[in-house]
Amino acid sequence: MVAEIVSVGTELLMGQVVNTDAQFIAQRLAPLGFQVFYHTTVGDNVKRLTSVVHQAVERSDVVVFTGGLGPTDDDLTKETVAAALGLTVEPIPEEVERLERYFAARGYSFTPNNLKQASFPKSAVILPNEFGTAPGCIMSAEDKTAILLPGPPRELFPMFQNHVMPYLERMSGSKLYTRELRIFGKGESSVTYELKDIIEHQTNPTVAPYVKTGEVTLRVTALCQSEAEGEALALPMIGEIIGRLGDIVYSTVGESLPETCARMLTDDSVTLAVAESCTGGLIASELVAIPGCSKFLLEGCVAYSDEAKARRLGVRQETLEQFGAVSEQCAKEMAEGMRRSSGANYALATTGFAGPDGGTEQDPVGTVYIALACEGSVVVKRIQLHGERARIREIATLHAFDMLRRKLCL
Amino acid sequence: MVAEIVSVGTELLMGQVVNTDAQFIAQRLAPLGFQVFYHTTVGDNVKRLTSVVHQAVERSDVVVFTGGLGPTDDDLTKETVAAALGLTVEPIPEEVERLERYFAARGYSFTPNNLKQASFPKSAVILPNEFGTAPGCIMSAEDKTAILLPGPPRELFPMFQNHVMPYLERMSGSKLYTRELRIFGKGESSVTYELKDIIEHQTNPTVAPYVKTGEVTLRVTALCQSEAEGEALALPMIGEIIGRLGDIVYSTVGESLPETCARMLTDDSVTLAVAESCTGGLIASELVAIPGCSKFLLEGCVAYSDEAKARRLGVRQETLEQFGAVSEQCAKEMAEGMRRSSGANYALATTGFAGPDGGTEQDPVGTVYIALACEGSVVVKRIQLHGERARIREIATLHAFDMLRRKLCL
Repeated sequence: MVAEIVSVGTELLMGQVVNTDAQFIAQRLAPLGFQVFYHTTVGDNVKRLTSVVHQAVERSDVVVFTGGLGPTDDDLTKETVAAALGLTVEPIPEEVERLERYFAARGYSFTPNNLKQASFPKSAVILPNEFGTAPGCIMSAEDKTAILLPGPPRELFPMFQNHVMPYLERMSGSKLYTRELRIFGKGESSVTYELKDIIEHQTNPTVAPYVKTGEVTLRVTALCQSEAEGEALALPMIGEIIGRLGDIVYSTVGESLPETCARMLTDDSVTLAVAESCTGGLIASELVAIPGCSKFLLEGCVAYSDEAKARRLGVRQETLEQFGAVSEQCAKEMAEGMRRSSGANYALATTGFAGPDGGTEQDPVGTVYIALACEGSVVVKRIQLHGERARIREIATLHAFDMLRRKLCL
Repeated sequence: MVAEIVSVGTELLMGQVVNTDAQFIAQRLAPLGFQVFYHTTVGDNVKRLTSVVHQAVERSDVVVFTGGLGPTDDDLTKETVAAALGLTVEPIPEEVERLERYFAARGYSFTPNNLKQASFPKSAVILPNEFGTAPGCIMSAEDKTAILLPGPPRELFPMFQNHVMPYLERMSGSKLYTRELRIFGKGESSVTYELKDIIEHQTNPTVAPYVKTGEVTLRVTALCQSEAEGEALALPMIGEIIGRLGDIVYSTVGESLPETCARMLTDDSVTLAVAESCTGGLIASELVAIPGCSKFLLEGCVAYSDEAKARRLGVRQETLEQFGAVSEQCAKEMAEGMRRSSGANYALATTGFAGPDGGTEQDPVGTVYIALACEGSVVVKRIQLHGERARIREIATLHAFDMLRRKLCL
């Protein structure tokens, strides 16, 4: 079946917001077997919206609309789509009551404008909005299906997941079973090169790569009738991918590197402390982002200056003078000092030239030393990164977590 | 003049990447006086791409295309657009040479496929690509203009800024003078309510609000003939906005809150240290993101556990027992302890319940205490936030920077 996405909103046309809705919906339509050929964005204008609606309904079986479901005169999506399908919109008593209760509970007055949000074609399936006032709906006429959703992502995402997905699964006669393989240590082109034949000949399950700074995610999606069948389809594919890529695949359940480390530290009942120079708080911040981090994170130190490295971490003055703050020796002493003074089982330390200035001939901008100390040993890794300051800091942070993950795997 | 944006790429249709290119371009077209009525995304398919190209050229004066300029057979944009405009594409000798040099310098071999990237209509304006191999181009025929740009944002953004903007400015006979007003302390609806009449009756300059977690940015854009004229048009509007909103406008030149604090600390030659519990590294990390932070940032401490608060910051055991770690007293002692031990002029400290668990009846999840210590005084602010853990941490970080900014303004 052919599907398309129509986003309605002047704020999208003007670039005031980026269209994450279209991406979210597209990611879910394709694996269900819908072919998506077009995304269109159009403003809140009757004439242009009408022409877009007609074109979309003409060429696709399913059209997903986002935006334009609000209470103001500008919000035209529902009325325009209904008209194109030959349907009329009228207040639905249960929806009017629900909205009145919603407003009363918040002490707002219910104005005639709000009636609009409680009006639908009689035959429409109404989709509850758990995070806002505008319900979505599904309208059908003559083999054409229009799915209308509110624009704000915090309303659309859960509505799509909870109410649209089951509908689409029934429509396609299948369910989706999805697993996210997360990869650190190789770029997208090299990962897709090694999986070239799999990606080119994919049918079911499908394998789609996504890229984030420094990382690649492979989404393995099986079209199935049950969770068990999905798993049976996906697992051999996941096994084949891991067989080719090896231990650069660090999660098969969509966990991030910090989450993977956090889980392993918690499972092993061991503790961590971090001493950061160039990553300056990024490692600690990623860990504190995880609820329950107090179980394993004893403390963090941001020691950007030489003074802080010496005073807080016990880096020796001779080390700073002889080798400099960006050196294997300094990283080592930072990690050892942090582990000693915190009493943690493991300590991570980073020091490097994040740019744009700094660096030496041997250690240009982008050089980062990462040290990992544990009982009786400390290892240091030197990495050479490229790009902007923010990118260098982010990727160095990923390397630090990867080093810790590999140690905890042993 | 009417403009539209056509994005070409299966990876966009499938939702593998979000369309930041369309947003970037739209933000710049509207203020130059171009009316943007449609964005369309279509895949690398000759038939559908051809129909989209014809429709776009039919209804708009200027069409900006993104993507599909690569060397593979899938990359069809240039050939399809040229055909629609009645132009033919051929290898341009200077471009062939340039590409050959580019490949030779990197030790890659130049394959026949690469000739595609050096081929253009003879009349086209070629746009150099400083960050990739595919140049962009501008083709014109019969009052219609097609602007073709590479898809990757890191290639497109600079190409648009450096080569397309000057072209569009000449086309519209005007320049853009833009100023970004950054606001912390009021939400978007309340900011736009206070500026309702300005936003509704805007002509030149225009005022457009953008929202980021916890913050509002107003983009004031004047259409002008010169920088001086632009400034003369924009400044009274900026004055009017500041007159209404007051000191919640913290920058009129697009500086972020951490950047504003960093500039003020540097200008005043004073130093800062930070002690973070619930924000855990976020404040430090935002500061280390700024080149030259060693001038003012002495150190940071992530003291998430009670032990770290006591051992590293000297928070008293009685304080932790009597008031708890999330309390005015604890925040105060964290800031004072950090300032004392670091020798910094200022110290910021945060402690709070970021959720999802924790909190008390008086201090539920979302309660954060922020303390700012300086010579002879320490002030504590209690804030009550809502939402997810990540949001609470981010907004608490903004409050901390805002507190520091207000202190440094005195």
